[in-house]
Amino acid sequence: MANEKFEKPTGTQDILPGTVEKWQLIEEKARDLCRRYNYREIRTPIFEQTELFERGVGETTDIVEKEMYTFKDKGDRSMTLRPEGTAGVVRAFVQNKLYGEPDITKLYYIGPMFRYERPQAGRYRQFHQFGVEVFGTADPAVDAEVIALGYTFYKELGLQGVKAEINSVGTPEVRAAYRSRLLAYLEPMKDNLCSDCQSRMERNPLRVLDCKKDQDKFTDAPSILDSLDEECSVHFGKVQSYLDAMNIEYEINPRLVRGLDYYTHTAFEFKAQGIGAIDTVGGGGRFNGLVDQIGGPDQPGIGFGIGLERIQLILEHQGIDLSGVKPLDVYLVALGEAAEREVVKIIYELRGKGISAERDYLGRKMKAQMKSADRLNARYTAILGDDELARGEISLKSMESGEQRTVKLEQLFEELV
Amino acid sequence: MANEKFEKPTGTQDILPGTVEKWQLIEEKARDLCRRYNYREIRTPIFEQTELFERGVGETTDIVEKEMYTFKDKGDRSMTLRPEGTAGVVRAFVQNKLYGEPDITKLYYIGPMFRYERPQAGRYRQFHQFGVEVFGTADPAVDAEVIALGYTFYKELGLQGVKAEINSVGTPEVRAAYRSRLLAYLEPMKDNLCSDCQSRMERNPLRVLDCKKDQDKFTDAPSILDSLDEECSVHFGKVQSYLDAMNIEYEINPRLVRGLDYYTHTAFEFKAQGIGAIDTVGGGGRFNGLVDQIGGPDQPGIGFGIGLERIQLILEHQGIDLSGVKPLDVYLVALGEAAEREVVKIIYELRGKGISAERDYLGRKMKAQMKSADRLNARYTAILGDDELARGEISLKSMESGEQRTVKLEQLFEELV
Repeated sequence: MANEKFEKPTGTQDILPGTVEKWQLIEEKARDLCRRYNYREIRTPIFEQTELFERGVGETTDIVEKEMYTFKDKGDRSMTLRPEGTAGVVRAFVQNKLYGEPDITKLYYIGPMFRYERPQAGRYRQFHQFGVEVFGTADPAVDAEVIALGYTFYKELGLQGVKAEINSVGTPEVRAAYRSRLLAYLEPMKDNLCSDCQSRMERNPLRVLDCKKDQDKFTDAPSILDSLDEECSVHFGKVQSYLDAMNIEYEINPRLVRGLDYYTHTAFEFKAQGIGAIDTVGGGGRFNGLVDQIGGPDQPGIGFGIGLERIQLILEHQGIDLSGVKPLDVYLVALGEAAEREVVKIIYELRGKGISAERDYLGRKMKAQMKSADRLNARYTAILGDDELARGEISLKSMESGEQRTVKLEQLFEELV
Repeated sequence: MANEKFEKPTGTQDILPGTVEKWQLIEEKARDLCRRYNYREIRTPIFEQTELFERGVGETTDIVEKEMYTFKDKGDRSMTLRPEGTAGVVRAFVQNKLYGEPDITKLYYIGPMFRYERPQAGRYRQFHQFGVEVFGTADPAVDAEVIALGYTFYKELGLQGVKAEINSVGTPEVRAAYRSRLLAYLEPMKDNLCSDCQSRMERNPLRVLDCKKDQDKFTDAPSILDSLDEECSVHFGKVQSYLDAMNIEYEINPRLVRGLDYYTHTAFEFKAQGIGAIDTVGGGGRFNGLVDQIGGPDQPGIGFGIGLERIQLILEHQGIDLSGVKPLDVYLVALGEAAEREVVKIIYELRGKGISAERDYLGRKMKAQMKSADRLNARYTAILGDDELARGEISLKSMESGEQRTVKLEQLFEELV
């Protein structure tokens, strides 16, 4: 054995058999839901030009300031491992001129994202998101559809206590007016607020109301909903009416602003009964200015991003077992050399016809092979000795009932299906 | 519109709707085959410590010398985007002590890999591979199984002219002896060989026989098969006997050595009728020393890697259309405001029951909506006006037959399945 031991990078995971099946189930659910909702997949590169994220996520965000994996490629261009999914999808929407299609564009993505954060439970430096983005319509029915898709995703996975929190963050003009009202309210109490709040008052006063420490001090703060203009109010009213029509559990939270500046109108988060409290498991919003900001035409958009590690953590905490390990159809045991060569052929043919089949590759005794079949949760074992082979037969045993019988080799496939 | 236009990094792709469905089909095929062959998925990080690839791929290979995306993370550790799949899987096998399981370990992976190469047709800097690795047995039946899995993958995708080329590259001792014989043969003709061949004579003489320019000069070169010892010959003979039993098309190519030094015994490549000539579409081999080299116990292994871009290029060249775009079940048209709110509810319920359904979000006239339904290849359109709504009915039209009839709203789901 060599001296060196290699380890995975800090904050990354090996997803191994036994766990990977949960991931497969979650992804299959996302894909199937997107099929039903008529969203089609897009896959953008794992890394992009660094400037894309500076522009698309925001230069003053924590993500861009502190958390990006940025490097120079061999052509001396600054590249960054994508820290989130939206910027790349918007870039692809613009570069590939998808806005030229006659219909609106409904996309989804599933894949790894990268942020250099302090590793902690359920938080990784390589993490995985399922997200959707819709371009080309400002119809509030799409806001409701996107929320419905995310909500249904959690519900169908079995998460408990799922609800949506929604808010309208208005247009940039509405937000500017509200910002002034809010600052006027906060100014007199500034010295009593925590340092985070004080710095947020400078940078993004709307996020002050979100503060974990101070939020109880703001019970009589002005609500952004009172600052909405007619257009914003009508839009938000329709979103609610559609959510009502679908019977989706939601609450209005006028303090919900999300971390990103580009949201307009609807902002939302998904909550579930988490570890001790109600946890945010995903969120998103409408971004009517972002496509333009990335260099495209003025097209409205809306989307969400859902962290898949977080879902698994909460499913586990809620005692919900997604284990998707499928049983094996048949385990083949060969006794003798002629039988072994025949088993190579039989197993190849069964697998070719869709049967999942396994055999021994360690020259083990029959008893050890039967244990292997048990571990694989095999429905049947099929035992071929030289005697059976000479008669063109094989012995088939149901692992559930223990019943054993002899079948013709050419009947084996039919017996298994 | 902002001035800046963002583009994807050179050598990367956006995989868009219309193309992404081909990728989905290929991946579903790989996953289903692995289910039948009892291989389970493993997902390792997108980047690893740089030293892992130096050790696991080889410091003198082109990959490590010229092609890696290497960067320092914020903790000043040298990381590299994985240029291939085996090293990370072997690292995970060792670090997670999978060798401690009672059965052998059969793994597969699907995902992006990264090499800084000159971009050309079918070759990308971010490319994608499907691979398998088996650890824990030196049984030649596994060599045959791995070849059968790859072969079946191509066949079931519909590739034409698929065959395997196989060789035995023996043990390190066998190769050392053969290397001397081969150098003795090459030495007298050295001055007549191309510069590539001359430099390969120093570094890896076995690869000289592979040279595209000079290979015709080596018709009487000694064959590695004549240098095999008893153990290697028996192993290789059994692999052939098993491939014969499965009726897999293969040829023995004693010049096939693959680029990597760590192969032992069986090396193989998959060929298909390519663009003008027979092309290599994937390959692999047995690596009985690699686990030890990465810091693990002395465990035999074997695997292959298959490039998914290459497959698509050849499928396209062979005129095989994988298009997996599924038709839409129903397109819903709402006429009037009350009908629209009802359609929000109906579409939500249909999607919840597994139906794929779409509607208009652009306030378009009915005719434009019917065109949209056509583009989505909808099986049915369902039209709800305020009159129908008042009667609790909806008008259902088959897009294939043109037949139109009225059904009760509560019967709609049953009519669609």
